[in-house]
Amino acid sequence: MLTNELTQQLNIQYPIIQAPMAGGVTTSALVASVSNNGGLGMIGAGYMRPEALREQIHAMKQITDKPFGVNIFIPNEYTVSEEKVRQAVQLIEPIENKLRVQENSRKLPDVETDKRTYEKLLNVIIEESIPVCSFTFGLPTKEVMSRLKRNGTILIGTATTVKEAIECEKVGMDMVVVQGSEAGGHRGNFRHKHEESLVGLMSLIPQVVDKISIPVIAAGGIMDGRGLMAAICLGAKAVQMGTAFLTSTESGANPVHKDAILHATEDQITLTAAFSGKWARGINNQFIKEMDAKEALLPDFPVQNTLTQSIRKAASSEGNQEYMSLWSGQSPRLAKKQPVSELINHIIHEAEELKFLL
Amino acid sequence: MLTNELTQQLNIQYPIIQAPMAGGVTTSALVASVSNNGGLGMIGAGYMRPEALREQIHAMKQITDKPFGVNIFIPNEYTVSEEKVRQAVQLIEPIENKLRVQENSRKLPDVETDKRTYEKLLNVIIEESIPVCSFTFGLPTKEVMSRLKRNGTILIGTATTVKEAIECEKVGMDMVVVQGSEAGGHRGNFRHKHEESLVGLMSLIPQVVDKISIPVIAAGGIMDGRGLMAAICLGAKAVQMGTAFLTSTESGANPVHKDAILHATEDQITLTAAFSGKWARGINNQFIKEMDAKEALLPDFPVQNTLTQSIRKAASSEGNQEYMSLWSGQSPRLAKKQPVSELINHIIHEAEELKFLL
Repeated sequence: MLTNELTQQLNIQYPIIQAPMAGGVTTSALVASVSNNGGLGMIGAGYMRPEALREQIHAMKQITDKPFGVNIFIPNEYTVSEEKVRQAVQLIEPIENKLRVQENSRKLPDVETDKRTYEKLLNVIIEESIPVCSFTFGLPTKEVMSRLKRNGTILIGTATTVKEAIECEKVGMDMVVVQGSEAGGHRGNFRHKHEESLVGLMSLIPQVVDKISIPVIAAGGIMDGRGLMAAICLGAKAVQMGTAFLTSTESGANPVHKDAILHATEDQITLTAAFSGKWARGINNQFIKEMDAKEALLPDFPVQNTLTQSIRKAASSEGNQEYMSLWSGQSPRLAKKQPVSELINHIIHEAEELKFLL
Repeated sequence: MLTNELTQQLNIQYPIIQAPMAGGVTTSALVASVSNNGGLGMIGAGYMRPEALREQIHAMKQITDKPFGVNIFIPNEYTVSEEKVRQAVQLIEPIENKLRVQENSRKLPDVETDKRTYEKLLNVIIEESIPVCSFTFGLPTKEVMSRLKRNGTILIGTATTVKEAIECEKVGMDMVVVQGSEAGGHRGNFRHKHEESLVGLMSLIPQVVDKISIPVIAAGGIMDGRGLMAAICLGAKAVQMGTAFLTSTESGANPVHKDAILHATEDQITLTAAFSGKWARGINNQFIKEMDAKEALLPDFPVQNTLTQSIRKAASSEGNQEYMSLWSGQSPRLAKKQPVSELINHIIHEAEELKFLL
């Protein structure tokens, strides 16, 4: 069961996909290592400039001839409420002062620019003939789907509920990532409200596979061969792992972030919308506590994300984990500091052993 | 892997435990059917009078010679805040009027009576030589543990985090139920705050089994052979299933409750503390919506539970699902109306088939 229609279609050896974590984690070294070791490496292009994506793809092609993918965010409409920006700045300024932040451009994003960047990222994916493209935070238009399909790209949607998974299949996705409530980083819900979309994988996978025909990729809290085999028992054809790859040697995550995960316990992993304006899961810290219950005052994603950039940047460069976004899934106790090759070998070895024991 | 040290110790054929749902669900017909079909039936004695428990045990012994268990709640300290009771009554009265409630004794519970009832329930369990006793909402004293152990009773704790599971092992539990965030009904957290204890089974099981040596029983969202095999892959030795048994023919749940689960979807399952003063998972309805964000005004468990009794009773007898507590785990789409024998046969058949396919 470790090779199936999904591994065949993606042309990979093992049903292991490295989650396309945005924000500098998915270095070429990480993505290429995953692909070179039999999984599918993914560039998290969510916050990338088109030129940077093209550059990374060129670098990647030098170090792997295996397939790899790119993930992009669907640009959503949002309003830049002056009042909410003012409220957020009031909350952020004292922290900026404490962290001695030098520059805070306060340059806010706008939907039109986001949409142009998205179009340019799509063009790079098409021009560079990337074999796999996944989407988060919504669904592309029919026209975008067709352009990519004509180019031979395999398309993967992201869903957090049965209804969202059905929509992914309906618009023509080839596969769908189902993100359980265990997952670290941003929640991918696009049709349901946050509270309605926190379903554990034990419940989510079987309910989704009963309703759709495209292969399901399970994401959330999966770190080893036990998780891979459990996901397969529940009906998934592959797993997508973020936190497990984040702490790997090759990942570009800040060492403070890696270290925080390696020392965290499952009860410290919480949900917050304070860093970006969108709910995400990570290790509880001072910033999350200070902003707790103030979510309603904050502007939408990605406005709040832009406003907290100064804080996150200053904290990162100082190695101050109290004001960084320490995204993590609910299984930090299973995280290890190891090269990608070891991680993948362990997973496959453990899965094979389990198959034998069952 | 369907027989192991746990099935041997409990003297059952299959690693399937019926969750000890309180409040009239676990009729003798349900509990005996589970035990007679190779699983472990459990009486949910959480809200029962000692005499009623003894009566049910006597009835049970007439219809099964297989082992069955009893679950009791650990009585916790609580304060009856007059102000909070007043606030709760203010919220409840308009609903009582709407439902034309005739009697509402407003007789509040007190800790001392709860403790005496708990002692009496323990005496029944000992006098009737019940082979298995599980605990929710905390840990018994050493003295209680010893009395039961001397009597040959197998003791099972309930935990929602790694730390709680370690505590269960330390006090001498023989096994521990780990309750994932997917689980229906009341949350069993006793050391952690509610928000810290919502861990999905995909994360919770492997992190717990890595830290303790006693057998782990997985609970939350498990409904079929896929869930059973997934739990075993993750390291559990058995599963405890609530919702799957609640909709069975033999369960004593109100038909309106059964029907609501059979028509629900996973995105309608929510968390609320409004019915009892303790967080629990069930189908969203009018009562939960009306009480939303008012949790802080409400008195502790079981005070609030007593106050809402009039509403729940009136709604149940009218078949009005908007004011009943419709407890359910996150997998309602997998629920079926079927006899216990069919449910257990399906689970085992599906699990065996999966083993063969892996």
